[in-house]
Amino acid sequence: MVKVAVLGASGYTGGELLRLLALHPKVKLVAATSEQSAGKSVDMVFPNLAGRLSLALEPLNLDRLIGRADLFFLALPHTTAMPAASRLIEKKKKVIDLSADFRLKDPKTYETWYKTPHFDPGLLSRACYGLPELHRSEIQSARLVANPGCYPTGALLGLLPLFAKPAVDPGSVIIDAKSGVSGAGRSPGLAYHFPEANEAVSAYNIGRHRHLPEIEQELSGLARKKISVTFSPHLVPVNRGILSTIYARPKKAIGTAEAVEIFRNYYKDEPFVHVLPPGELPNTRNVQGSNDCHIGLVMDRHAGGNTATLVIVTAIDNLVKGAAGQAIQNMNLMLGYEETLGLTAPGLFP
Amino acid sequence: MVKVAVLGASGYTGGELLRLLALHPKVKLVAATSEQSAGKSVDMVFPNLAGRLSLALEPLNLDRLIGRADLFFLALPHTTAMPAASRLIEKKKKVIDLSADFRLKDPKTYETWYKTPHFDPGLLSRACYGLPELHRSEIQSARLVANPGCYPTGALLGLLPLFAKPAVDPGSVIIDAKSGVSGAGRSPGLAYHFPEANEAVSAYNIGRHRHLPEIEQELSGLARKKISVTFSPHLVPVNRGILSTIYARPKKAIGTAEAVEIFRNYYKDEPFVHVLPPGELPNTRNVQGSNDCHIGLVMDRHAGGNTATLVIVTAIDNLVKGAAGQAIQNMNLMLGYEETLGLTAPGLFP
Amino acid sequence: MVKVAVLGASGYTGGELLRLLALHPKVKLVAATSEQSAGKSVDMVFPNLAGRLSLALEPLNLDRLIGRADLFFLALPHTTAMPAASRLIEKKKKVIDLSADFRLKDPKTYETWYKTPHFDPGLLSRACYGLPELHRSEIQSARLVANPGCYPTGALLGLLPLFAKPAVDPGSVIIDAKSGVSGAGRSPGLAYHFPEANEAVSAYNIGRHRHLPEIEQELSGLARKKISVTFSPHLVPVNRGILSTIYARPKKAIGTAEAVEIFRNYYKDEPFVHVLPPGELPNTRNVQGSNDCHIGLVMDRHAGGNTATLVIVTAIDNLVKGAAGQAIQNMNLMLGYEETLGLTAPGLFP
Amino acid sequence: MVKVAVLGASGYTGGELLRLLALHPKVKLVAATSEQSAGKSVDMVFPNLAGRLSLALEPLNLDRLIGRADLFFLALPHTTAMPAASRLIEKKKKVIDLSADFRLKDPKTYETWYKTPHFDPGLLSRACYGLPELHRSEIQSARLVANPGCYPTGALLGLLPLFAKPAVDPGSVIIDAKSGVSGAGRSPGLAYHFPEANEAVSAYNIGRHRHLPEIEQELSGLARKKISVTFSPHLVPVNRGILSTIYARPKKAIGTAEAVEIFRNYYKDEPFVHVLPPGELPNTRNVQGSNDCHIGLVMDRHAGGNTATLVIVTAIDNLVKGAAGQAIQNMNLMLGYEETLGLTAPGLFP
Repeated sequence: MVKVAVLGASGYTGGELLRLLALHPKVKLVAATSEQSAGKSVDMVFPNLAGRLSLALEPLNLDRLIGRADLFFLALPHTTAMPAASRLIEKKKKVIDLSADFRLKDPKTYETWYKTPHFDPGLLSRACYGLPELHRSEIQSARLVANPGCYPTGALLGLLPLFAKPAVDPGSVIIDAKSGVSGAGRSPGLAYHFPEANEAVSAYNIGRHRHLPEIEQELSGLARKKISVTFSPHLVPVNRGILSTIYARPKKAIGTAEAVEIFRNYYKDEPFVHVLPPGELPNTRNVQGSNDCHIGLVMDRHAGGNTATLVIVTAIDNLVKGAAGQAIQNMNLMLGYEETLGLTAPGLFP
Repeated sequence: MVKVAVLGASGYTGGELLRLLALHPKVKLVAATSEQSAGKSVDMVFPNLAGRLSLALEPLNLDRLIGRADLFFLALPHTTAMPAASRLIEKKKKVIDLSADFRLKDPKTYETWYKTPHFDPGLLSRACYGLPELHRSEIQSARLVANPGCYPTGALLGLLPLFAKPAVDPGSVIIDAKSGVSGAGRSPGLAYHFPEANEAVSAYNIGRHRHLPEIEQELSGLARKKISVTFSPHLVPVNRGILSTIYARPKKAIGTAEAVEIFRNYYKDEPFVHVLPPGELPNTRNVQGSNDCHIGLVMDRHAGGNTATLVIVTAIDNLVKGAAGQAIQNMNLMLGYEETLGLTAPGLFP
Repeated sequence: MVKVAVLGASGYTGGELLRLLALHPKVKLVAATSEQSAGKSVDMVFPNLAGRLSLALEPLNLDRLIGRADLFFLALPHTTAMPAASRLIEKKKKVIDLSADFRLKDPKTYETWYKTPHFDPGLLSRACYGLPELHRSEIQSARLVANPGCYPTGALLGLLPLFAKPAVDPGSVIIDAKSGVSGAGRSPGLAYHFPEANEAVSAYNIGRHRHLPEIEQELSGLARKKISVTFSPHLVPVNRGILSTIYARPKKAIGTAEAVEIFRNYYKDEPFVHVLPPGELPNTRNVQGSNDCHIGLVMDRHAGGNTATLVIVTAIDNLVKGAAGQAIQNMNLMLGYEETLGLTAPGLFP
Repeated sequence: MVKVAVLGASGYTGGELLRLLALHPKVKLVAATSEQSAGKSVDMVFPNLAGRLSLALEPLNLDRLIGRADLFFLALPHTTAMPAASRLIEKKKKVIDLSADFRLKDPKTYETWYKTPHFDPGLLSRACYGLPELHRSEIQSARLVANPGCYPTGALLGLLPLFAKPAVDPGSVIIDAKSGVSGAGRSPGLAYHFPEANEAVSAYNIGRHRHLPEIEQELSGLARKKISVTFSPHLVPVNRGILSTIYARPKKAIGTAEAVEIFRNYYKDEPFVHVLPPGELPNTRNVQGSNDCHIGLVMDRHAGGNTATLVIVTAIDNLVKGAAGQAIQNMNLMLGYEETLGLTAPGLFP
């Protein structure tokens, strides 16, 4: 049993960590913090936990927390996670940071996108990007894991097999992603006010979303050269889920069945990635509440070679595989637990 | 480990049984039947089960099924469950019937509401109405449990404490229930076609819904006299959840705090019923995916004694506490397992 | 052509006034105010108006506004409408106030529910409660009309025929209302944050909602004695619509057809009230975007005389008949226009 | 006043025609047909029309209909519209066909996609593709207008300015479209059953949707060479609306402001097309219920020239500009009415 604390537990990512940790057989949750809700029990903030988890939220005081847990999940806002992580690592704790603070390897890139210098560039270089399907062995020995963003998780899982063995023109990638509203966090705002977000479909931040450099960094690492992609996020009126529709031009003509085969081979040992048979396409509905990623493929060459486009569609739950579930998957790897421990509950349908 | 079969596994209740049984540590699911989808794997019918449960659906053939399992869940349509239950009980199997076929004790009442004579009135008299909060000890020794309807579960849990020790005028009860659309089943129809059911709130079958006699039967049993209630079901555009707002006139003046106390006392040992503190009211959101029932109370006497009305609000997930979860709770009781086994996962939020 | 100004035009009620006034053949909209959005064009605040209405929002400055219009719609927050109305009436303008400031005849009741003394009790006594189906002739000659609340409109239209000629026990009335989220206004808050309000059904403010005294005042006026009712508001995940399910005990046994007949007679000359035939019940879907009120009735006496309950269900669009549409209906009456002018567009389906 | 009939009036497109025609000042609706609902009044099939339009639906009998109207809207299923149109044109009637039967100029292409030979290839060659922004003058003199599909309308309006003066690599076009569920029609089916379509985002028919040849035909006509595009339709849980996100590689480097300027110039005289300023992107919410098309543009060149992609986002209401509204716009053109007549009501917000 590992003793675990969740710092920043009152947002959706924090709440999802609590929900999933409550199911984990080898975790003892010893503390959860929240500034706004300090003193309240967790089930006042997340009423779904009533009778399932009783723990009082406390303010974030590292001095008082540090001795009580072995592993810390940071679900703190960007820029505030850095100093906490720095201190915890210094004290030999294991840390999984769900903010963006340790995802971008280059401190300058971090500063460009997050408008503040990085607090601990030295630590940044030792952090591991926590996508198990790409960096499993590094995660196993990491002390600090930077848990990927929700959009990058959905996008990268749709591109890894094509970049591992270069199969597409790397400059041709377009990612059109549709996210549920929980991805915007728990802070109210007009764009997420129910009557504005309901019955509404919109695009936002095309070509300038903060998850873009994360996607490009990991693809560049795989391709061993600088990769740029077009990334268009959209907001759709569901609570959970990201559907990423990805377009890329294959280097040589292949069929849908062949593309499916490439993906099945690549992911054959992955417990959470399911590649659908030719003719089927994913639906966010089917991964709601689970750590699964469903992937479907279509080779579109109805019009002859010059417009041939490979279309990859991935579906994840942004709060699970896109955040808290993947964090627990990373924890399992870091602690030598079975990778799927605590993550085997099927999603909710309908 | 008990060997279990689910008959009629392709509807929402069947799918929810599969989802929850997959989480149960002392169950081995040996068979699941479906006429329409026989031959398909369960995850073709419920894609959320991909990689979680692999089992081929088979047609319902009792001869071939009977020797393979010890306990049978019947998620069959009303009127078709009766002969199957009859045969299984004859063969000394345990049966939990999620249809309405064994809920109404009086065969004439059954015939009035379901337009067909009962197949096995003798067995009907030995069936136990499976609301653990009311009939726990009988369920423990029952061979055939009639799992309650979703509306009756939400309504009865809001009324048991007031009928156990008569605290309200029994002729004053009005139940205004709001149900998510999964309560209507998985068969498409115009009223449940997305563009018709979305952005729509409506009442239906006021005073003539089939769940009405069930509610009245159980209240009459408690009150030891014939009880009639007004029952108004409504359809609201959510997938899961029933919110029941119940009105009753108290026999003597009490306050909200006192009413809360009566409920807390009555339910103090119940693992799935949570009585909210005065001032708080339930939300179906908070029980989505869990077997919980949340109850809130308001004593409305703003206008003086003669209009004093006690308002009880209950929230359940119609597919869990209102169907599959309660069925598993009943199974645990019948088998001497811990009552909450397999049912402790918190609900999904948001 | 009447010259009209909308004060407080950036909320949902204000926006709906702009939408409907743009359709009105005898209205010239000369000004619209907003403190937060002053300087912006209306279509920046309501993008549905792009190309349909071009007008710059301005700050509320009565000195500069008063000479420009003949009739003023006040869609200002409660308590801020009072001084504006007072001044405008003094200057011989016509005023339709969509806030609650002039709805409650008794200044003490106003102070009890709105926590502030009334600014102009003298004017209060001359204001007319703007429910045309109840006070048409007074509205025609009124200078200040207090436009009813959304819940009171839906509730009163379901009760007028039963109180005009006393047909029900006045102390037996229970109103269970389900409202879409736009009823809560346009200011973001956690309860209305999309992921919290979506897939959620909840009750709130039972017995203590501010629309309660309004309902009781008008029923008391009709009954010529003090009437108290139980009022339970609920939030349901739709943008628009209120479904009010109303329970009352009839004084003598009647059937559903007879009840329908009473309502049809009462409303036979009303252009916006449609009484459905026996067996049909309303759906908020069918009045979305229109000024209509649909009413369905069920006499529930399945269980014999002592539990006989008349159930009345009404459906309105909270922003149209429950706010802006009714305000325009009142304007038509005040100006001697045809009552339905500008209000004949059918609702949106689906 | 033109006398008009709607053939096939019980689906969503038919219902939307009835709603909009009821608003049109120069139309007299003389007949509406439905096989399934013959004999019912239109407001039994579309309850939003109660009190707004009273007309009995009748079976489709051309002999009895032909003398009563001058212009016919065909909202019949594909393949059944052809013979009706053929007969009506022969009798010198004007026809606007909302099915796909006269959209594809090449009878072989029609047969390939609709699996049946065309009934009247001669008439096909005289039909005009009814996109006013592209074929206005031909529509004005046409007797038979083929009203465009919903997806093609959203896609073409986003591409016309780029193909009129070739500004993008014509082989680079990718259209990622997100449609509300009403686009699938009014016939219930599992994929559109509320609990399956709600809280779900999915892709379908990538590269093989029937609207693809329509898009390619019109682009090819503009480009004067055969154009192929990648087209990915998606289903999102809203009633109305299509958001089309379109990707194309510009021939020479331009900025977002320049792209906006090209679109503004092209559409400067169009009454229903609104090009948003740089930095703003469309939302289907803002065109709900109106005939408007909102267009936003982003030149994505964050990563240098070789990945420069122009992203065009268009929003329409699939039932209005994507069907019934555009049909009425075409009628206005055919009859020499003002083009916007009956179509100036703003959309519903929220």
